[in-house]
Amino acid sequence: MVKINDNFLKLPGGYLFPEIARRANAFSATNPPMPLIKLGIGDVTQPLAPAVIEAMHKATEEMAHKETFHGYCDEIGYDFLRSAIAEHDYKARGVDISPAEIYVSDGAKSDCGNIGDIFARDNVVAVCDPVYPVYVDTNAMAGRAGDYLEAGFWSDLVYLPCTEANGFFPELPERTPDIIYICSPNNPTGTCATKEQLKVWVDYANKNGSVLLFDAAYEAFITDPSLPHSIFEVEGAKTCAIEFRSFSKTAGFTGNRCAFTVIPKELERGGVSIGSLWNRRQCTKFNGVPYVIQRAAEAVYSPEGQQQIRQTIAYYLNNAKVIKTGFEQAGLTCYGGEHSPYVWFKTPAGYGSWEFFDKILTQACVITTPGAGFGPSGEGFIRVTAFGDAAATEEAVRRVVSIL
Amino acid sequence: MVKINDNFLKLPGGYLFPEIARRANAFSATNPPMPLIKLGIGDVTQPLAPAVIEAMHKATEEMAHKETFHGYCDEIGYDFLRSAIAEHDYKARGVDISPAEIYVSDGAKSDCGNIGDIFARDNVVAVCDPVYPVYVDTNAMAGRAGDYLEAGFWSDLVYLPCTEANGFFPELPERTPDIIYICSPNNPTGTCATKEQLKVWVDYANKNGSVLLFDAAYEAFITDPSLPHSIFEVEGAKTCAIEFRSFSKTAGFTGNRCAFTVIPKELERGGVSIGSLWNRRQCTKFNGVPYVIQRAAEAVYSPEGQQQIRQTIAYYLNNAKVIKTGFEQAGLTCYGGEHSPYVWFKTPAGYGSWEFFDKILTQACVITTPGAGFGPSGEGFIRVTAFGDAAATEEAVRRVVSIL
Repeated sequence: MVKINDNFLKLPGGYLFPEIARRANAFSATNPPMPLIKLGIGDVTQPLAPAVIEAMHKATEEMAHKETFHGYCDEIGYDFLRSAIAEHDYKARGVDISPAEIYVSDGAKSDCGNIGDIFARDNVVAVCDPVYPVYVDTNAMAGRAGDYLEAGFWSDLVYLPCTEANGFFPELPERTPDIIYICSPNNPTGTCATKEQLKVWVDYANKNGSVLLFDAAYEAFITDPSLPHSIFEVEGAKTCAIEFRSFSKTAGFTGNRCAFTVIPKELERGGVSIGSLWNRRQCTKFNGVPYVIQRAAEAVYSPEGQQQIRQTIAYYLNNAKVIKTGFEQAGLTCYGGEHSPYVWFKTPAGYGSWEFFDKILTQACVITTPGAGFGPSGEGFIRVTAFGDAAATEEAVRRVVSIL
Repeated sequence: MVKINDNFLKLPGGYLFPEIARRANAFSATNPPMPLIKLGIGDVTQPLAPAVIEAMHKATEEMAHKETFHGYCDEIGYDFLRSAIAEHDYKARGVDISPAEIYVSDGAKSDCGNIGDIFARDNVVAVCDPVYPVYVDTNAMAGRAGDYLEAGFWSDLVYLPCTEANGFFPELPERTPDIIYICSPNNPTGTCATKEQLKVWVDYANKNGSVLLFDAAYEAFITDPSLPHSIFEVEGAKTCAIEFRSFSKTAGFTGNRCAFTVIPKELERGGVSIGSLWNRRQCTKFNGVPYVIQRAAEAVYSPEGQQQIRQTIAYYLNNAKVIKTGFEQAGLTCYGGEHSPYVWFKTPAGYGSWEFFDKILTQACVITTPGAGFGPSGEGFIRVTAFGDAAATEEAVRRVVSIL
């Protein structure tokens, strides 16, 4: 008889966001006094940039005619997009990454999950706590997390607490991990690492032969020019890091699906090129991103596209400011929100994450995300996203403040 | 130090199609006397149907306005598409499959590869020989194939020879497998299984608790109304089979990327719903198909869309007929091509697959696919695709016949 992958059965309950949706739907069914405002899941609300829309119409028209029709593309993406990425996201910031080191995909979530395919099962994995649940769950599925313990920890993972005490940036652990996930600007805490902070981990990974999995999905929200957008701005990173990027938050592509992973040619372990393994994985288990979507992503880099996405990012950053300022004036302690679309605030004394989530949901009719859903060290915090409509965000802030 | 997944290092050379591309490019560099005609990789050449193009423009326009913009969708697809699939691909053929049993994805290749995530490593896997290489390579990566042997076999796989002697449909093996891949209409042999043939495997799988992974990517090419388009037309299949479908060949979506997998609610092993495992896998490691692409796929089921895709399929089937008739008149033994876009022909006496591939490439300037690339039992055969331009296909047939 076929045997299922038992590791799946160890996963606790549902994924965080379905659980939030369940509670929100149950509350909706009770005819709440006000319409719900959603500041929970980190999904964008503003339309695609006009330059992107124009590129999609044009590419669609190409697909309508035999002479310009596009069938299978290279699994790892068209040259036109990989070249645009290399030029604008790297060369323009003084980082030498070639198109051959860039692998286009349908999402950073897919890549963060699928990257595990190229590593052995018996690697020790380190994750920040709190953390984007995909890193943990995908390693649990692969058998690298061990068993789920009641306290919310997995037996085999190395946890890197990110707390107020360490400024939400992890310290080096006692047990040396082989694979280390770092996300900056951070989801969920909204904080952004400096080059100096990242250098500590780059040196550590190089010394131990570990690999850093660096998630930079929110880099477009960085406003301080001294902060790094890429791990490859840090000296030595090319021999120890893989970087995940996405158009989801940069250009509102959550419904368009395009991302990319960067693996420098210098990154190898035991004489094997890590990029060649990923290339083989993608060529065998993936068939590329739709032509119209790759043209849409290319348009993000046009002068008009750049100007238009900056405007939308400024809109979201203003929401973040409204949230943070409003909450702070009401006495809440807030983090993030300056180089990130996420504000991470402390629940008032006596309230647990889920408890305060429920209070905000049922009394203010606002959906947030309980920090505890991101790991044990997220307990006592709530994540609020700045991706909503500006007027709705202001209204949400008023409502939350009124119930404090 | 991080340990890579050593199974990747066991994979021989490159994937089949890159090797073909390498030889074709090397030959191109010698200034061949005639332009190359590509009948190798199974990629479509005709433009998308007008109904699909219209839907893509309309969906793009929705993405341009805040009121109609779409962000994240359900990972497993929009209801509008899953309902259309259930209605037209199943209910219309008398098969009761609900939208909840349908999981939309970016490709059958992705799903065929990723499905392995939900099964344990130590399952015994059976594949037909010859076979679509993705089934073998993805299991090799997961450690289920064992070691690659010089004869072209993997030590731990159960091979099901598909030869002229058995009409290219496999007989039950001596060693009982847990996971069994079956593809009909078949890639590469172009043959199509009857209900009676499939019933033997359904009964066998139910008896042994095995799971059938049924790849029906080419079902739209079936012309005989008595042949099944879905494994679920066979009694008992719902308790033992998973079906993979794709819009790639049905509607020319190789550059559009949309497919779906069907897992009946009745399918469980050891009390665990297989569909729930796949749902968890997809929700954790995938983020859905672009909105415009799901609308494009939905349009395939409109009356206009159906009429338009049938016309294109007829065009390709006519190419298949031209190839088969031309080759047979020249004395070659051919299979497939009636319910499939593939013609599978025997190389003339004395020629191996790659040898005859090279002869056709260099003397006729036509690119085909050597049968040996699909497995040891493919030796002595060549696969030719009917996805080319009609005039070019006729020219290719003339050229190949002239060098016999």
